[in-house]
Amino acid sequence: MAKEVFKAVVEPREGLTMACKVREFEMLLDEPVELGGNNKAMNPVEALLSSLGACKAIVMRCFAPAHNINLVDFKIELEGDLDPDGFLGKNPEAKIGFSEVRTHITIDAENTQEEIEAFIEFVEKTCPVQDTLVNAANYKIIIN
Amino acid sequence: MAKEVFKAVVEPREGLTMACKVREFEMLLDEPVELGGNNKAMNPVEALLSSLGACKAIVMRCFAPAHNINLVDFKIELEGDLDPDGFLGKNPEAKIGFSEVRTHITIDAENTQEEIEAFIEFVEKTCPVQDTLVNAANYKIIIN
Repeated sequence: MAKEVFKAVVEPREGLTMACKVREFEMLLDEPVELGGNNKAMNPVEALLSSLGACKAIVMRCFAPAHNINLVDFKIELEGDLDPDGFLGKNPEAKIGFSEVRTHITIDAENTQEEIEAFIEFVEKTCPVQDTLVNAANYKIIIN
Repeated sequence: MAKEVFKAVVEPREGLTMACKVREFEMLLDEPVELGGNNKAMNPVEALLSSLGACKAIVMRCFAPAHNINLVDFKIELEGDLDPDGFLGKNPEAKIGFSEVRTHITIDAENTQEEIEAFIEFVEKTCPVQDTLVNAANYKIIIN
């Protein structure tokens, strides 16, 4: 398979509500009222955590059989630390985005702890969103 | 404002469909049929692009007045290059996640091109998702 191009289009709605269009799908993102939004949906950093968790989850489901992991059930909980004083311009010392992200994986599999740990290590290395977050892509801006 | 903790919980549904829960919101993510999914929603890397675009869009809306940008309308289109041979294990040379992300900003504002370019430069530096993608957070895995 050659390089594929994935696309999204974002259009503003009322206030800080944004419509994100991908193929035949549309999802809203917004900010909670205390951050100035209409609270119609999760916000972009929460969607980023969701994207990361779902990507790991999909890699787990896809690759468990090949790794002889008998996955019964699992759940992924993510927590990201962010100081809004950074992007609000109130504290130049504060990082603008997430400073730390913790992924808690609760896994029920008919395997040893060692096998599970080796599998999760594989998932971390094989998850496209995790890779994008750790090994920065080349970012380009084009203004029309 | 002190550090805030943003959270998401991901639970598997049928096949590769994943439910992402954030506060009172839930969004599905999935893979298209050709990548093994049920195509019930956009996929995680598309959601990542959406999150990035919406975050830039929210920063634009929030900060335009303070920067004397008279924003009439705008649209953000994102393209991300990814070679699925990487995560499929078919090509060890291929990057696992996005190698390049292009953001096309179409902006209608009653300002000069110079003012618009300076504003977009500010948006790039002030967008929490962009910062997270460029300046990697500290990532921790906890297996329960």
